[in-house]
Amino acid sequence: MLIQHVPLLSTKRIVLASASPRRAELLRGLGLKIEIFPSTFEEDLDKSLFANPGEYAKETATRKAHDVYQKIQEAGSGKRADLIIAADTVVELGSQVLEKPRDVDDARRMLSSLSGQVHKVYTGVALVTPKSSGSNSGSSPLLTSFYEGTEVEFAELEEQSILAYIASEEPMDKAGAYGIQGLGGSFVKCIHGCYFNIMGFPIHRFSVEVDRLVKSGAITA
Amino acid sequence: MLIQHVPLLSTKRIVLASASPRRAELLRGLGLKIEIFPSTFEEDLDKSLFANPGEYAKETATRKAHDVYQKIQEAGSGKRADLIIAADTVVELGSQVLEKPRDVDDARRMLSSLSGQVHKVYTGVALVTPKSSGSNSGSSPLLTSFYEGTEVEFAELEEQSILAYIASEEPMDKAGAYGIQGLGGSFVKCIHGCYFNIMGFPIHRFSVEVDRLVKSGAITA
Repeated sequence: MLIQHVPLLSTKRIVLASASPRRAELLRGLGLKIEIFPSTFEEDLDKSLFANPGEYAKETATRKAHDVYQKIQEAGSGKRADLIIAADTVVELGSQVLEKPRDVDDARRMLSSLSGQVHKVYTGVALVTPKSSGSNSGSSPLLTSFYEGTEVEFAELEEQSILAYIASEEPMDKAGAYGIQGLGGSFVKCIHGCYFNIMGFPIHRFSVEVDRLVKSGAITA
Repeated sequence: MLIQHVPLLSTKRIVLASASPRRAELLRGLGLKIEIFPSTFEEDLDKSLFANPGEYAKETATRKAHDVYQKIQEAGSGKRADLIIAADTVVELGSQVLEKPRDVDDARRMLSSLSGQVHKVYTGVALVTPKSSGSNSGSSPLLTSFYEGTEVEFAELEEQSILAYIASEEPMDKAGAYGIQGLGGSFVKCIHGCYFNIMGFPIHRFSVEVDRLVKSGAITA
């Protein structure tokens, strides 16, 4: 697991290709020192090209990670990044995919549609590590990517609860218009899967994959 | 749900009969102003007298809430409490009930026994509200109590992960010797039920019960 590699990882340049304060908080909570370098990738892939929203989120995360990898390469001079982390979270409700609400009305519609229903939250993650020092600098970096899905059962929400929640402004920057780690947590009856995946970053799976990267020598002392 | 009653609740004296910083954080995250008044109840009930660990935790929470209710009554002079909240969390693994580890060796044994297994976390909650002003001051207060159970699947933990985790000191004050909201979260593959229940306070169920107390007039303006 990642935990025993924290001393090694603290000597590495780890870059989070995301502006999400929740992802940064989760990674710091694991004891990692991270640098924030948000990707400017448009997040405009055609969802119909993917077998499920998890695959879509994984590909979006991959594009974000490569975008930041390339920008760091181009910037040149500085120390290279040892690990670039990107993620993307989407909510699936029946045949719909919910991302961040466009405005207050959109948030209200999303919350009404989630009320009393089970939905699924997918977070795709991409980890990029440069090839080991033996390889050419021109070679493509090593990519590890995956997604996790977590089921979430919402309580029946009264209109007043939805309005009070929107007034809190919590919904606006979140996929599906709620944050489970905040006031929105009171709406959630039950989850099945990784909790942190709903917050936007599946830390168990991430820990397993980083452990693998260290043991395979992709991240070394 | 609780969320639309936050303005009303902010005018009330709400007392948390627990020293757990996690419970205080969760309640404050719901927008509640709370006062901390830890119970000194011994937590020494005979577990064999209860049908399951959830019932045991519920009764322990009830004793804690009544203990604090009584102390506040005895203190007299001050404003009476409008809502007293107590909780108790235990971990069930097979036929064992795990509480806080006694020492480092105990934490190590607990974590080894949780490795690769599914366990269940129970949090019992007791809410005490004084009877409405019409009743005699000598009458017993209104008690609402319940428990929630959440299943947690742990990954297989290497000895090194357990040792690194114990070195972090996170396990020592937590039932089952781990905290899901911290480094321990990386050990958890999957949960089934309320996440916050694992942290020590089931906020959805609490929100539903407080909503009921307000609508029934047990908490009024």
